[in-house]
Amino acid sequence: MQYAIGIDLGGTHLRAALVDRDGNVLAHQRVLTLAQEGPDAVIGRMLALIRAMHSAHPNASICGVGIAAPGPLDPVSGVVVTTPNLPGWDNFPLRERVASALDWPVVIGNDANLAAVGEWRFGGGRGMQNLIYVTISTGIGGGIIADGKLLLGHRGLAAEIGHMVLSFEGPTSGSAPTRGSWEALASGTALARDAAAALRAGTSTLLSELATPDTVSTMYIQAAAEQGDAFAQELIEQAGRWCGVAFVTLLHLFSPEAIFIGGGVSNLGDRLLAPARKEIESRALPGYRETPLILTHLGDSIGLLGAAAYVFDECSPVASDTSA
Amino acid sequence: MQYAIGIDLGGTHLRAALVDRDGNVLAHQRVLTLAQEGPDAVIGRMLALIRAMHSAHPNASICGVGIAAPGPLDPVSGVVVTTPNLPGWDNFPLRERVASALDWPVVIGNDANLAAVGEWRFGGGRGMQNLIYVTISTGIGGGIIADGKLLLGHRGLAAEIGHMVLSFEGPTSGSAPTRGSWEALASGTALARDAAAALRAGTSTLLSELATPDTVSTMYIQAAAEQGDAFAQELIEQAGRWCGVAFVTLLHLFSPEAIFIGGGVSNLGDRLLAPARKEIESRALPGYRETPLILTHLGDSIGLLGAAAYVFDECSPVASDTSA
Repeated sequence: MQYAIGIDLGGTHLRAALVDRDGNVLAHQRVLTLAQEGPDAVIGRMLALIRAMHSAHPNASICGVGIAAPGPLDPVSGVVVTTPNLPGWDNFPLRERVASALDWPVVIGNDANLAAVGEWRFGGGRGMQNLIYVTISTGIGGGIIADGKLLLGHRGLAAEIGHMVLSFEGPTSGSAPTRGSWEALASGTALARDAAAALRAGTSTLLSELATPDTVSTMYIQAAAEQGDAFAQELIEQAGRWCGVAFVTLLHLFSPEAIFIGGGVSNLGDRLLAPARKEIESRALPGYRETPLILTHLGDSIGLLGAAAYVFDECSPVASDTSA
Repeated sequence: MQYAIGIDLGGTHLRAALVDRDGNVLAHQRVLTLAQEGPDAVIGRMLALIRAMHSAHPNASICGVGIAAPGPLDPVSGVVVTTPNLPGWDNFPLRERVASALDWPVVIGNDANLAAVGEWRFGGGRGMQNLIYVTISTGIGGGIIADGKLLLGHRGLAAEIGHMVLSFEGPTSGSAPTRGSWEALASGTALARDAAAALRAGTSTLLSELATPDTVSTMYIQAAAEQGDAFAQELIEQAGRWCGVAFVTLLHLFSPEAIFIGGGVSNLGDRLLAPARKEIESRALPGYRETPLILTHLGDSIGLLGAAAYVFDECSPVASDTSA
């Protein structure tokens, strides 16, 4: 049996796992990223975690190390372009810095892209050739498996699905200029922004008892909706309709076998997905309408598992082909 | 030198060409499709054209035959699902019917997809690994080269780019249910529909001197715009803005090196593309903004050339890799 070490470089936590080809986790460890100490310190912690994974099973044959990192990065050159939540990582040669200290090959990938690989190799997407993974959280990101391969695009910048434009007019999201984008309309940040605006405007809603404009979040909106609050229910439904419109475009562009959905906002479940399914039924062409929307079962570990799966895909393509 | 025979099965014309690996056309022939005579008669004409191409250069070594056909089809099974403009072709085993009468391998593909292959192998996209080809005509279609391969998707149904949703509200296009789709908003049919409505409503425009609600078309709208007609100019600009919004989504999803544009409506040139570029500049993320929009130089032959190029790609993958 061969093993891979997966690393998930998050803004808060740095995680590592030793994973076999079937997705079983043999060892797992998590430490604080402490990103404010800068890349050198973080790389040091990363190498310590990698060695800890190896020490846990010193006789395991390790194929390589896969690192899931946030923000745009070039998986071919191994360079992180920029990381919104980690200071000091602009144009950082992440792969080379890690690989030069190890005897194993190292691959890196965008965390949302590698989550798609995790779903594909170890989750509900096993055996598929075409799938889309969407994470709806503070922002909206994703990864695309197209014709049996992770879609990368020029300089690895494909699959920025949160920046699809769904509306000619509409808000922007954070510092991104993409007016009317999916992320600007239906992310957790967008839901909280719209709820805060309503609270400030004095809209009659249970939310005013649960939160203030500064503290309101998807969690409170969900709680209010479950207690029958019409405003909160409509807010979630509207987000669901935007998700549905985005899914229709993704179905027609990629013809996936399924769309998998993760991220904190996906905990809204059918309250979000039922209106999305309605948009698909009314707008998609006949051959695409039946494509299932599936909540991921891999939870928080999806990026970590995907990082390990990507090692198996990249370091031994023959094995990856036989599993397809 | 090796050669391929390309076939373009159109609603009006059936065309064939004998093409070398550099895209040079050694022989070319065109006949009427006469689709109303049914598939058997059309297949007979197709086989006669193929034999004529071979007879033109009987000593040429032919790799295979590529057929570009309209409408959704499955390039893996070789079955045409349905063809809007050709009666009697539903679930028609096109590849098998042609291959059984020949000694060469036969590949089939959607005409807009194969146009992308034509642009990639023989046009402005040579050497690229990622590009998008868009045809804006009566409808809007396209093809996508992603990570050095034609994107097919599940059952070959990917790249239905005219059915991207650009607006929550908005018209539908023809019999398609995709409300607010790119095709419903900015195709030649959409331009003519909006011009006809304006003429019926008595809008003051030069178009009323050039055409009636029943005859107005992109050609007349272009003529009026060139004579300074404000209504016609705004109509084209609005279509250009919709195209820009669609391009922003395509850039973020695929990270192409260029977007190539063909089809009759693309003759509007910068009148259409300048407002599209403005949307890209204002909405796209920094790494995507510089991607060029390029009018195709391959004209009407793009599908025919693409069908031949697809033969070289599919029948001898080694040669295709070296050209990448």
